[in-house]
Amino acid sequence: MNSFGNIFRLTSFGESHGEAIGGVIDGCPPLINADTDFIQRELDRRKPGQSDLTTSRNETDRIELLSGVFEGKTTGAPIGFIVRNTDAHSSDYDNLRNTYRPSHADFTYQQKYGIRDHRGGGRSSARETVARIVGGAFAKLVMQQETSMEIKAWTSQAGHIVLKEHYSKLNMNQIETNPVRCPDPETAEQMEALIRTAKAEGDTVGGVITCVCTGVPRGLGEPVFNKLHAALGAAMLSINAAKGFDCGMGFDGASKRGSQMNDIFCRKDREDITVRTNHSGGIQGGISNGEDIVFRVAFKPVATLLQKQQTVDINGEETLLTIKGRHDACVLPRAVPIVEAMAAMTLVDFFLLAKTWSKDIF
Amino acid sequence: MNSFGNIFRLTSFGESHGEAIGGVIDGCPPLINADTDFIQRELDRRKPGQSDLTTSRNETDRIELLSGVFEGKTTGAPIGFIVRNTDAHSSDYDNLRNTYRPSHADFTYQQKYGIRDHRGGGRSSARETVARIVGGAFAKLVMQQETSMEIKAWTSQAGHIVLKEHYSKLNMNQIETNPVRCPDPETAEQMEALIRTAKAEGDTVGGVITCVCTGVPRGLGEPVFNKLHAALGAAMLSINAAKGFDCGMGFDGASKRGSQMNDIFCRKDREDITVRTNHSGGIQGGISNGEDIVFRVAFKPVATLLQKQQTVDINGEETLLTIKGRHDACVLPRAVPIVEAMAAMTLVDFFLLAKTWSKDIF
Amino acid sequence: MNSFGNIFRLTSFGESHGEAIGGVIDGCPPLINADTDFIQRELDRRKPGQSDLTTSRNETDRIELLSGVFEGKTTGAPIGFIVRNTDAHSSDYDNLRNTYRPSHADFTYQQKYGIRDHRGGGRSSARETVARIVGGAFAKLVMQQETSMEIKAWTSQAGHIVLKEHYSKLNMNQIETNPVRCPDPETAEQMEALIRTAKAEGDTVGGVITCVCTGVPRGLGEPVFNKLHAALGAAMLSINAAKGFDCGMGFDGASKRGSQMNDIFCRKDREDITVRTNHSGGIQGGISNGEDIVFRVAFKPVATLLQKQQTVDINGEETLLTIKGRHDACVLPRAVPIVEAMAAMTLVDFFLLAKTWSKDIF
Amino acid sequence: MNSFGNIFRLTSFGESHGEAIGGVIDGCPPLINADTDFIQRELDRRKPGQSDLTTSRNETDRIELLSGVFEGKTTGAPIGFIVRNTDAHSSDYDNLRNTYRPSHADFTYQQKYGIRDHRGGGRSSARETVARIVGGAFAKLVMQQETSMEIKAWTSQAGHIVLKEHYSKLNMNQIETNPVRCPDPETAEQMEALIRTAKAEGDTVGGVITCVCTGVPRGLGEPVFNKLHAALGAAMLSINAAKGFDCGMGFDGASKRGSQMNDIFCRKDREDITVRTNHSGGIQGGISNGEDIVFRVAFKPVATLLQKQQTVDINGEETLLTIKGRHDACVLPRAVPIVEAMAAMTLVDFFLLAKTWSKDIF
Repeated sequence: MNSFGNIFRLTSFGESHGEAIGGVIDGCPPLINADTDFIQRELDRRKPGQSDLTTSRNETDRIELLSGVFEGKTTGAPIGFIVRNTDAHSSDYDNLRNTYRPSHADFTYQQKYGIRDHRGGGRSSARETVARIVGGAFAKLVMQQETSMEIKAWTSQAGHIVLKEHYSKLNMNQIETNPVRCPDPETAEQMEALIRTAKAEGDTVGGVITCVCTGVPRGLGEPVFNKLHAALGAAMLSINAAKGFDCGMGFDGASKRGSQMNDIFCRKDREDITVRTNHSGGIQGGISNGEDIVFRVAFKPVATLLQKQQTVDINGEETLLTIKGRHDACVLPRAVPIVEAMAAMTLVDFFLLAKTWSKDIF
Repeated sequence: MNSFGNIFRLTSFGESHGEAIGGVIDGCPPLINADTDFIQRELDRRKPGQSDLTTSRNETDRIELLSGVFEGKTTGAPIGFIVRNTDAHSSDYDNLRNTYRPSHADFTYQQKYGIRDHRGGGRSSARETVARIVGGAFAKLVMQQETSMEIKAWTSQAGHIVLKEHYSKLNMNQIETNPVRCPDPETAEQMEALIRTAKAEGDTVGGVITCVCTGVPRGLGEPVFNKLHAALGAAMLSINAAKGFDCGMGFDGASKRGSQMNDIFCRKDREDITVRTNHSGGIQGGISNGEDIVFRVAFKPVATLLQKQQTVDINGEETLLTIKGRHDACVLPRAVPIVEAMAAMTLVDFFLLAKTWSKDIF
Repeated sequence: MNSFGNIFRLTSFGESHGEAIGGVIDGCPPLINADTDFIQRELDRRKPGQSDLTTSRNETDRIELLSGVFEGKTTGAPIGFIVRNTDAHSSDYDNLRNTYRPSHADFTYQQKYGIRDHRGGGRSSARETVARIVGGAFAKLVMQQETSMEIKAWTSQAGHIVLKEHYSKLNMNQIETNPVRCPDPETAEQMEALIRTAKAEGDTVGGVITCVCTGVPRGLGEPVFNKLHAALGAAMLSINAAKGFDCGMGFDGASKRGSQMNDIFCRKDREDITVRTNHSGGIQGGISNGEDIVFRVAFKPVATLLQKQQTVDINGEETLLTIKGRHDACVLPRAVPIVEAMAAMTLVDFFLLAKTWSKDIF
Repeated sequence: MNSFGNIFRLTSFGESHGEAIGGVIDGCPPLINADTDFIQRELDRRKPGQSDLTTSRNETDRIELLSGVFEGKTTGAPIGFIVRNTDAHSSDYDNLRNTYRPSHADFTYQQKYGIRDHRGGGRSSARETVARIVGGAFAKLVMQQETSMEIKAWTSQAGHIVLKEHYSKLNMNQIETNPVRCPDPETAEQMEALIRTAKAEGDTVGGVITCVCTGVPRGLGEPVFNKLHAALGAAMLSINAAKGFDCGMGFDGASKRGSQMNDIFCRKDREDITVRTNHSGGIQGGISNGEDIVFRVAFKPVATLLQKQQTVDINGEETLLTIKGRHDACVLPRAVPIVEAMAAMTLVDFFLLAKTWSKDIF
């Protein structure tokens, strides 16, 4: 299914080389200022061709808002929108009509549906995330207007280059100043160099994005199956090329003792409680505890290589594949706003859900 | 919300020290043999008191099937069941009525609901997973009767002890032969020793469970938001103490190049296609490709320590907490069947969902 | 699927002659007084054997609350409950194992599932509505504690006997004073006589239940697909033997002109607006307008007759059917509390849903 | 929420005078021929300006398919589409910005959302049903290609003019030959005259649409809450101005005895079973029994009158309202294809859902 969320719900449609990418945002509260400049800026952060690290596909990614907004404000009605595809070079993909790219979705789509739109990867292309950026932008507008929540993501690993500092030591204002979206300029340069080298070799690079959500009210998350970090995990793992997720100390915490990991409660001030550490990453028992929510998303390297690769065609014959088309050597820089968008939609959804009964809490 | 799944759907209820843990399985196909011996064996794998590594709470965990089965077969009607709580020592928890255990759900439940059943952790207790085992057992029965799918999970890390062999080199028949559920006897012994040491110190140990699903048909998974590994991730992260999930090469793949990671397609035989490697972990583009599905789940150490800990009470006063009650020093051994249960429910759910349109594929 | 509602959600299970009827109420707000006496009184209104008009099956219908309530208050955790079946005479149904009752669900269950529990009608029995009464009772408790809403239903037609007075002229306190649950004593007597006659002939009687919901806040209902009357309609048509639903003037309004039907707005007082008439039945554009919600539910006569009937067996052989077992000659009296329960769950569900964004409205 | 269906799912967006009406169809099976001529013909049946009985708004209602179709066939990806609004006269609605039309959704939208797009009724306009027609057209294409199901609806009552013949005696080929869509030419003429008279008086007329679905396989419908007629009821009651629904004998059956109403099973031929009558309307116990599904939908007269009406403005001041704009005097003729569309989506959704487990039944 192509819908995401319970109360605040995005339904997405569109293929890479079809008419348009689009979506419907249902359940957005009324009377939110639909700041189209902000939405467009968010789209621009994801846009192809931002730097020479990314695909050179040239899309302006202009949003057309079709419904749900009246005189600049949301009305509670569903927000329909489209972003036209204007620079598709479909003939570059002719040889993929009958051949499967290794580790791409070509094969599994064909198996599942018995048909696929091979042009530009069709529905499996990350171009679909345009719709998520728009959904996320509206969620961020709700957050800004109705809550204290803020979200910040960045590239914390590209290939073997890892940013090791704790996020409290980083200058988040640096994230958007370099093409890899890493808040440490020195590490950013190393990442950039690595990606450039891989690109020159027709190769690709994986990595990790870290995300921190601040100002999250206590009480978001459903305690059993819809734990807040389970929902965030599903959101992140739904992003193209994402293969791993952890929260707080995550995989690193697996080797620790309870006595090292437990977050000791203490007084914040006369009226409130806080914790000495935040190894839990802001979520305990599946419910936000008011501390920063911290999580990581692992991305595999892009599957589409500009090197020759062995593969098979749809008849099962082995063949040598040469890719044309325009592709990213590393998705991380452009995935940063997508991680933020998915986080924003998830948090707003749980925020609205929590309002169903917690009249005395917020 | 306390329901899991779309077509095959478990709704769970019950608190640790309430009358019973129970659930409803909706959407189970009819005419499945409801093998109660098998279901009970699965419950026994999760049961407390299996070894001296686990809590000494003494529950027989007898299932009462209340509906949905007629003359030994499922009828398509919802399967209601309960497992009585018979060995709750609620007075052990009296001091937790007004005090929050560090890193436990006590605080967040109180914040979210303004009330909580503090006895035995109430709804936040892992005792709730009894319902998941039953749901998973029915899913496994569907798998056995209707599909070629099989699921095997094991403890691959406890604390700093890591089982490094690739799973193809392991003897899965060894898993159930030791109390930590690790297929390598030597590593199992080290894990056991580690947990025993931690327990003696009133401390706890985290770890990692690895799971492999074989015989999964191609085409399971929804391509955008409900990618198969996103659904598995949400399922796993909903388990108590789970803080991380990855699939295939996962976090390790983040440091790799595309040319190292891509799974090259080749001929399997005259009629079929396979891959030379399985770095994707059986899922590409969110859809199963017919190879083994492989994933890991990271667990933090249990939060409830038998050491004295600093904390606060519900008035925000700092206090020193001493825990009574019976607790696991490491959840991994008992979490192995829970991981399997969640995987089984997820795969059966997507299997049934895939049948809605893929008449020519299976 | 066996779940009802979005936020306030009942999942029901159980067969007529199985171990128990039960359910899980998910999404009930915390801190609601779980008044078990009230819940039991609601169950008693539905109970068999209340009068000689109803089936003589003798069930005490004692509720066992299994979870979700702590020290008399709901906790936000799912409320699991069962009601044991204690007076099933399954051998009365032996001849139905292989024979289909005309107009009953025997045939369609067998076709759909390839198996059925024939004892007492199995899952298709109206005994399942025990779970709805419990769900409705909790919904009524939410309504009493958190809202101004009230619900009142009654038998307004039995066979050809129709109660013609407008509900504003009726004394609702009379409803529970007679076995047919009709607020007009004279009409009640005629209905009673009619049912008694039919029963003596081994025949059954249909009818209509009318329901009025007062104090419903403005703004409940989703404007397009989940219109409030569409949801109420689905709720009512899910009751056994219900075959029709209308709201406000309903079918009678189809023959009217707009100029006769429109509800003219006027001032209520200095600060508020009301309408001169309520032909809309309290819902306009799918959303409650603050006036009384009024709807009707049409029930066909019970299909199980104590007369001999022609039918076929599962081999398609024609045969003459003689029914044993204990059956209602008219479901209306016992369906009155079921209509109320379904209305209560629907209204509370939409009330909670409306709270997601309407902070300024209520 | 603005989505309809479980497996085959339409999400709709758009306002009467916004940029476009549109939608997303999710869960449509792959490899369905997306016959755009057929889709356009269905849109034309709903289009304004078909006859002098309908609104004179002049829309070509051209569909733009944006995704989900490749080389003429559906791909399993979501089908996004829009229909531009090209003939909106928004200034005709200026006086409705601050005034509530009696019995219209103006008041309730304002109460629910605190804002509304008053132009052309905004989201509450029946222009939204454009999206339903497209969803229904795709559902009909699935039905034609994959099933034996067919759907036929017609105007069976307009004001006090009632078509009394049983549908088996009617010539369905006549439905599209007259502007009211009534299969009996004589009755059609009376209806037409009635609507014309009302229109001349600035008044409006209600009525009833009857719908018959043939070739429906046995086993569609979920037995408890999602009974097939409950889902059809919710679908129909979600149509603008619909206020009542019944199935089979419906409200008329309420006055009957069981012995009159029961549908006696008999042999159809050597291998199959049928019924002597179809008072159940093709559904028993909530599940289709293979007979014709028959239901009625009651519509109130259009609320927007071209007569002067008393009402209040948003400040609660009483005022006299004069309507401009272009409006239908009777919605029935244009609602016929909408009823069919909603029925088609419902049946296809349940058909796909039934495939999840009934491999041996169809």
